[in-house]
Formats: sequence, structure tokens, C-alpha cells
Amino acid sequence: MAMNVYLAGPDVFLPDALQVGRQKTEICRRHGLIGLYPLDNVVDRTATEASLQIFKVNEAMMDRADAIIANLTPFRGPGADAGTVYELGYMAARGKFCLGYSNDPAVYADRVRRSTKVTVRSGLLIDADGLTVEDFGHNDNLMMIHALDLHGAPLVLPHEKPADIWHDLAAFEVCVALAAARLTSA
Amino acid sequence: MAMNVYLAGPDVFLPDALQVGRQKTEICRRHGLIGLYPLDNVVDRTATEASLQIFKVNEAMMDRADAIIANLTPFRGPGADAGTVYELGYMAARGKFCLGYSNDPAVYADRVRRSTKVTVRSGLLIDADGLTVEDFGHNDNLMMIHALDLHGAPLVLPHEKPADIWHDLAAFEVCVALAAARLTSA
Repeated sequence: MAMNVYLAGPDVFLPDALQVGRQKTEICRRHGLIGLYPLDNVVDRTATEASLQIFKVNEAMMDRADAIIANLTPFRGPGADAGTVYELGYMAARGKFCLGYSNDPAVYADRVRRSTKVTVRSGLLIDADGLTVEDFGHNDNLMMIHALDLHGAPLVLPHEKPADIWHDLAAFEVCVALAAARLTSA
Repeated sequence: MAMNVYLAGPDVFLPDALQVGRQKTEICRRHGLIGLYPLDNVVDRTATEASLQIFKVNEAMMDRADAIIANLTPFRGPGADAGTVYELGYMAARGKFCLGYSNDPAVYADRVRRSTKVTVRSGLLIDADGLTVEDFGHNDNLMMIHALDLHGAPLVLPHEKPADIWHDLAAFEVCVALAAARLTSA
């Protein structure tokens, strides 16, 4: 039986979200997997209760999936998209196979340094608001990094940031291959 | 038996993180609950494997808790802290009682408007990178908003943004009271 993979990510916010979803599910198909892309769910987006409906459909899709591939590329700030991260936590807790990638291979602390003034105090990096910047050399918050390490496979990163971080699917395809390998070994 | 509540939030990044943790656990105690604050876990932060150790200790704490109170106050961008959001997803999936608050009551789309140039195209809000801005009138991403609605209680917001968003604990205490009410009704 084919493995169902939930395709989480801020891809749904792209102007060509549907097209990206088609490309991702096609890559899954080539590797013998079934990709479940949130936008596949027809939801009446004009309805008053649209957002609740989207939530319920996404949750049902996650419950049906055997694995998640989370696009953790930084979104509207130095870290990953909150909706995607929520879904990664949800799937980890359900014991699903957790995979993720980010198309920005920079270390989190370096990314924060680029977007805001960071100072060093008592050996800690402090941002402009006085909050400590996590500095373990990881790509993003340690909860996601180690969730992947322990509940799936380490975060997949490209060697270099691709020209189009929202449409380059090379790191995504590595995750698909990892999921497919897991399936054939199970 | 007292309810164990996992106290998630970017509070751990505050310069006075320990002190805030003490205040939060004391508020829990006054309401008859046991607050589990991540920094309560003594971890040797100089160790090479420190971040993995922190992850494991946090996960064990979550597994031990009956509920989560997530501080979803915007952190280093227009949305909540990724580590906190991961934990909310994890707890929702484990069927724990999910509560959250944000000390910035503004609507998410308005917060994005303040931090970046937003345009309207075909009735959708589009940010400077060309990505759609979720615009359902919620305080943050719909996955967190409805996770709280369906797995606990609606997001708690102050009427007005407090002067010190990182130290005002009024909205936090409302969450504690909700958790305590749940305990006595169980």
C-alpha cells in the first residue's frame, strides 16, 4: 500500500500555490508515494466558517497521512511558517514519520543578525528587544531540528540557497526519496 | 490530583527567564495547578549535546503534562515563536487541554501591514515577497487559532496591548483560571 505524505508548507500562500502542489504531488507519485497537499481540499473560501473548515480538513488529512514533509524555509521573518511548524509538532506527537527541508541553509543566528541588531552579553546573543537568540548552530529553533532528528530524518538543506527559494524543489525531492526509502524498508 | 500544566513560550529567551518562570508557576500554584516551566530542567548548557538534551527534557515534560498554556505573543516577526507553536501542535495531537494567549491583540494581517508593504490583488492581501497574507480576522495563523478552539479554549487576548508585553501576566492568568476550571469540572 502506498504511503500517504502530508505536504506542509507556506507554499499554499504562493500566487501559484496550486501549480506548486501539482509539482510536489507529481514528484511523490514518481517515487511511489501519495502526496496530500492542503489545497487539494476543496473548501468554499467565501464561507464565513472557511478558516475553521480549512483547519478541520487539514487535521483530517494529517490523521490520514503516514508521514509529513514540512517546508521550513523562513517565512516572513527569520524562522519557519507557524502553521507548518504546528503541523510538524502534531505529526511528531502522532508518531508519524517526520521530514523537513529549508531552502535557506544559513544558521538561524546568522539570519537574525542580518535582520536585526544583535549584541553579545555574558556570552549570549541578544536581539534588539533584549531576547536571547538561540545559538546552537542550527538552521532554526531546536524543537523542530531535533523533532526531525528523533522522529524522522535530519533537516534537509541545499548546499547553497537556490535562486528561487519558493520554487526550487531539489531539497523537497530528497525528503520524498527518504520517505520512499522508509516505505520500502518497512 | 493536581493538573500539570506545561508553560510554553519565548519567555525562556528573556533576560529574566528564571524569574518569569517563578512568577508563572506561582500563579499556577495559587490556582491549584502545577506549572512545568522548561527552564526548571537543569541542563548543562555548555555540553555539546545541550540542545538535544533540552529537546528531550521538554518532550518528557510535555508527555507528563495534562495541559499546555502557550505564550503566542509575536516573537521576532509578525507571528508566534516557532518552538512554542511546535509544542502546541504536539500537545493538541496528544489530546492534551490546549490554552494560549497573546499579549498583542492586533489582527495578524494588520501586524503584517505594519512590518512590510502589503498590496491587494484579486481581493487577496499580498506581502512584499508575493505571498498571500492570511486574512480571516484572526490574531495569528488559523492552525493555532482553531487548535485552541477545538482542543481547549479560544485564544486569550488583552483588550489593549499591555505596556510590557513580555512581563504582563494578566492574559496568562486567565488561561490558568480556565485550566483550573477544567480540572474542577473533570
